[in-house]
Amino acid sequence: MKTITTGHELALQWDTARRSGAVIGYVPTMGALHEGHLSLVDRAREECDVVICSIFVNPLQFGPNEDFESYPRPVEHDLGLLEARDTDIAFLPGWTEIFPRRERTLEDFGTHVSVPRLSHQLCGRSRAGHFDGMVTESLLFLNLVRPDRTYWGEKDFQQLRIIETLVGNLRLPVTVVRGATKREPDGLAMSSRNKNLSPQARALSPNLRRILQEARARLLDGGSLPAVLDTAREQLTGLGFAVEYLVACEEDSLSEVSVLEGPFPVRLFAAAALHGVRLLDNIPVTEVARG
Amino acid sequence: MKTITTGHELALQWDTARRSGAVIGYVPTMGALHEGHLSLVDRAREECDVVICSIFVNPLQFGPNEDFESYPRPVEHDLGLLEARDTDIAFLPGWTEIFPRRERTLEDFGTHVSVPRLSHQLCGRSRAGHFDGMVTESLLFLNLVRPDRTYWGEKDFQQLRIIETLVGNLRLPVTVVRGATKREPDGLAMSSRNKNLSPQARALSPNLRRILQEARARLLDGGSLPAVLDTAREQLTGLGFAVEYLVACEEDSLSEVSVLEGPFPVRLFAAAALHGVRLLDNIPVTEVARG
Repeated sequence: MKTITTGHELALQWDTARRSGAVIGYVPTMGALHEGHLSLVDRAREECDVVICSIFVNPLQFGPNEDFESYPRPVEHDLGLLEARDTDIAFLPGWTEIFPRRERTLEDFGTHVSVPRLSHQLCGRSRAGHFDGMVTESLLFLNLVRPDRTYWGEKDFQQLRIIETLVGNLRLPVTVVRGATKREPDGLAMSSRNKNLSPQARALSPNLRRILQEARARLLDGGSLPAVLDTAREQLTGLGFAVEYLVACEEDSLSEVSVLEGPFPVRLFAAAALHGVRLLDNIPVTEVARG
Repeated sequence: MKTITTGHELALQWDTARRSGAVIGYVPTMGALHEGHLSLVDRAREECDVVICSIFVNPLQFGPNEDFESYPRPVEHDLGLLEARDTDIAFLPGWTEIFPRRERTLEDFGTHVSVPRLSHQLCGRSRAGHFDGMVTESLLFLNLVRPDRTYWGEKDFQQLRIIETLVGNLRLPVTVVRGATKREPDGLAMSSRNKNLSPQARALSPNLRRILQEARARLLDGGSLPAVLDTAREQLTGLGFAVEYLVACEEDSLSEVSVLEGPFPVRLFAAAALHGVRLLDNIPVTEVARG
């Protein structure tokens, strides 16, 4: 595995790969890697000739009161994991390599990219500007890496849909590949922030997915959507979750639905905090929507 | 010359060119070609192996009361000009090839790109959203064409600076080449809209540049900037121009200056209408700013 820290070195690698007709696969990450990320690396390894994984904690996607400074950065451990999964190139640029004017927020940065219709609902409601900062930096990295295929997890489904829309609208010459959410044996969706959970919160955390699954089962049994979601929210609150949202949305438009009769697949989306640690999850209810 | 109308055909050409190591030059236009555009084609011809020119009247950059429908589209004539200047590929996509959801405005389109610090002054003041529509579509085309070098005229200096900023910020792997403003023998900056001038307005039109040159001469003689600009505006108004702006800005930031003592090159920028036809021009005052 080669570790590269500048866009210039990366461009040289790209030219060589492109001349030889190699297919380039790219997994963008913020580090603190877990099996969710590594399953994307494995998939890229299967499908591509060259596998590039970037690690960069993007300051533009953190709000002023969010955890940019304290976000975990176990770089040596991450590099060991990438090496073990047969990654070809670890791209670890420094802050000023990406933001030479030392930009810390999207406001500081000269160019803004946004996918407005998908950015203000769900996580966009509480994290104003988060997705604009995410998609702006993601486009920058896609331009630096210029992959043929790029791998994104369904765990952050809203982020995935925003990237798919960006790529489709702006005709980026790259295929976006969806990776299924990886889970702990008890069902908790893997996330770099899970290590912030206290043992007590960690023990409670699998209830988020369990309650989403129960809600889906009730919907498949013909339960009314608003009633089922109300019950699910109450259950979570009763267990000590601070529920930010628990809603049903069309997969494509991320528009909230109040019945399941539409022609589009529907997913349940939830964000809820346990002792201050914010957890996300989502599961498909496709059968209902298509039935 | 090959005429191509789809992104798919263009991608095939790109793959072939890239494998052979060819340098691709790209001149984006809205058609109604004149020597300003063709000088960019000539420059690309000198510097590149493959020369691509696109013709597409971008609906996203026209306001609701602007001339999108009536913008000239002399396609056969344009193709003859491109052929004569040894263009390799004329890229003429239809509206729904670029905007498959039949988007007509930036609001309709799923992804928004903007360079806010350079988009609200000068022409951005009267043409709200114009530059966001321009830069969003320009990025889309740069992604479709994937050139090594792209050619933009200094006549639309604000547009040029926005593209340079986009490319630098988002690390597009392309060099932006500036082409000097081409002028009629009497000094009028060439523009596709000049053909809308009545004979009387056409006769008056060279005064725009003449008055900018006189203002520069007065500044070089030590004249005070506000006084010199006031005089220039009065002269234009006296001749029948409806002056939209006539200001001095730093070339880089496009920030208006009221003295010429800063460390940055300064340019005079003007927009003024004659009998309803809007004319733009700009000239450098570099010597003053650097002196």
